[in-house]
Amino acid sequence: MSNDDLFEYLLRLGDDRLVLGHRLSEWCGHGPILEEDIALANIALDLIGQATLYLHFAGEVEGKGRNEDALAYFREEVEFRNLKMVELPIGDFAFTIVRQLLFDAFSFLQMQELQKSANSELAGIASKGYKEVRYHLRHSSEWLQRLGDGTEESHDRAQKAVDDLWRYTREMFAADEVEERLHAAGIAPDLRMLEPQWRTMVADVMQRSTLSIPSDVPPLEQDERGRHTEYLGHMLSEMQIVARSHPGAEW
Amino acid sequence: MSNDDLFEYLLRLGDDRLVLGHRLSEWCGHGPILEEDIALANIALDLIGQATLYLHFAGEVEGKGRNEDALAYFREEVEFRNLKMVELPIGDFAFTIVRQLLFDAFSFLQMQELQKSANSELAGIASKGYKEVRYHLRHSSEWLQRLGDGTEESHDRAQKAVDDLWRYTREMFAADEVEERLHAAGIAPDLRMLEPQWRTMVADVMQRSTLSIPSDVPPLEQDERGRHTEYLGHMLSEMQIVARSHPGAEW
Repeated sequence: MSNDDLFEYLLRLGDDRLVLGHRLSEWCGHGPILEEDIALANIALDLIGQATLYLHFAGEVEGKGRNEDALAYFREEVEFRNLKMVELPIGDFAFTIVRQLLFDAFSFLQMQELQKSANSELAGIASKGYKEVRYHLRHSSEWLQRLGDGTEESHDRAQKAVDDLWRYTREMFAADEVEERLHAAGIAPDLRMLEPQWRTMVADVMQRSTLSIPSDVPPLEQDERGRHTEYLGHMLSEMQIVARSHPGAEW
Repeated sequence: MSNDDLFEYLLRLGDDRLVLGHRLSEWCGHGPILEEDIALANIALDLIGQATLYLHFAGEVEGKGRNEDALAYFREEVEFRNLKMVELPIGDFAFTIVRQLLFDAFSFLQMQELQKSANSELAGIASKGYKEVRYHLRHSSEWLQRLGDGTEESHDRAQKAVDDLWRYTREMFAADEVEERLHAAGIAPDLRMLEPQWRTMVADVMQRSTLSIPSDVPPLEQDERGRHTEYLGHMLSEMQIVARSHPGAEW
C-alpha cells in the first residue's frame, strides 16, 4: 500500500459522488413534484459534499498542492475514476431512481465498512457519509416500490431501467490490485465480501417492487476504473467551464 | 380584506421565492468553487421550500383544491405574481450576488414583520423563513464585499450589476390596494415603512463594498405585480414540462 494507492482510491470515492451528484442536480427545478424536487436536490448536495471531503483528502495525500476544486475542475476526462454507471444521463425519473438504488446500496455497504478503516481520516469521512446514505437508500427503496408496484407505465419504465443499468453494476465489484492492497492494509473493505451483501439487499428491494433482475446480461467490455462512456466528457465540459474561464479567480 | 386579497398576497410571497429559487438552482454544478456551488444550491432549496409553504397555504385559502404543485406547475405566466427582478436570467456571478442581496434585504424585513402577522399560519411560515433569510443575507452581504472590494474586474462587474438591477427595486415597494387592506387588517407589513429601512441596509452594504447606488434611474414602465419580462415564460416552460407531461401522475 502506497500513497499512490490511497490517492487513487480516494479519487474513486470522490469521483463517484461528484459525478452522480452533478447528474442528480440536473433534476433541480425539473422534478414532477416540488417536494421530490427538493429531496433530489438535497441528495445531490449530500453527494457533492461527500465528494468535496474525499477530494480534499486526496489532494493532501497527493501532496502536490491540489485542493478539491483543482481536482474537480482541472482534471481531464481520462483522469476521472468514477464508475461508468454514475455518468450516464439522468434519463426519466424511473431511471434516476433505479440508478440511485443500485449506487446507494453499494455506497451504504462501502461506508459501513470504511467507518472501521485503519485510516482514521477516511473512517471519519465515511462515518459522516454513512448517516446520509442511510437516508438516501431509504428514499430510493421507497420510490422504487412506488414505481414498481404503481401503474403499468411506472412499472414498465422501472423494469426497463433495471434492464438497462444491470450491466453497469459489475464494475462496482471489479477489484483490482489497488483495492486489494488497501484491503490488506486494513484501509478498504473487501469488495468480494460486499458483492453478495449488495446482491441480497438489491434483490430484496426488487422483489418488494415486483421487478425482476435480468439474467444473462452481457458485461461491459471495459470493467475498470478510468474508462468512460461518451457522456462524461460533455458533462465535465459543462461542470468545469466557469472555473476554467477564471483560473485562480478569488471572485 | 377578503380571502382573495390573502390568496393574492400569498402568491406574491410564494412566487418571488419559487422563481428566484429556480433561477439560483441554475448555478448548481456550475459555480466557480465547490463550496460556493453547495452554498448557492442550499439557498435555492431554502427558497423553494419557503415557496412550497406559501403556495400550499395559498391553495388552502383559495379553497378550490389546488395544492402547491398545481399552483407551481399548472399556472400560466400571466398568473404568476413574482417581482420582475427575480425572473431575470442568472447572468454572471456578480449579478447573482447583487440580486440576492437586494432581495435578501427585502425578504429579511418582510419576514421580520410577518412574524407578527395577525394571521398565525402566515406568522409561522414567516418565522421559519426568517431564520433562513438571516443566513442568506449574511452570505450575499459578505460576497458583495469580497466582489466590490476585490479585483478591479470583480468591482466593475458588481457595479454594473447594481446599475442594471436598480431600476427593478422600486417594484418591491409599489404598494397597491391589496397590500394596503392586508396591512390595515394587521396581516401584512406596511411597505412604506419597509422601504427606508431597506434603503439604509442596502446603502450600508454598498458602502462597505465600495459600490455606489445609481441616481436618476428611469423606473420600469409597469411597476405592478403580474407584469413580466420576456424571461419568465421560457423559465416556466422548462420548469413545468415534466409535471405537465404527466398530469396527475403519482410517480
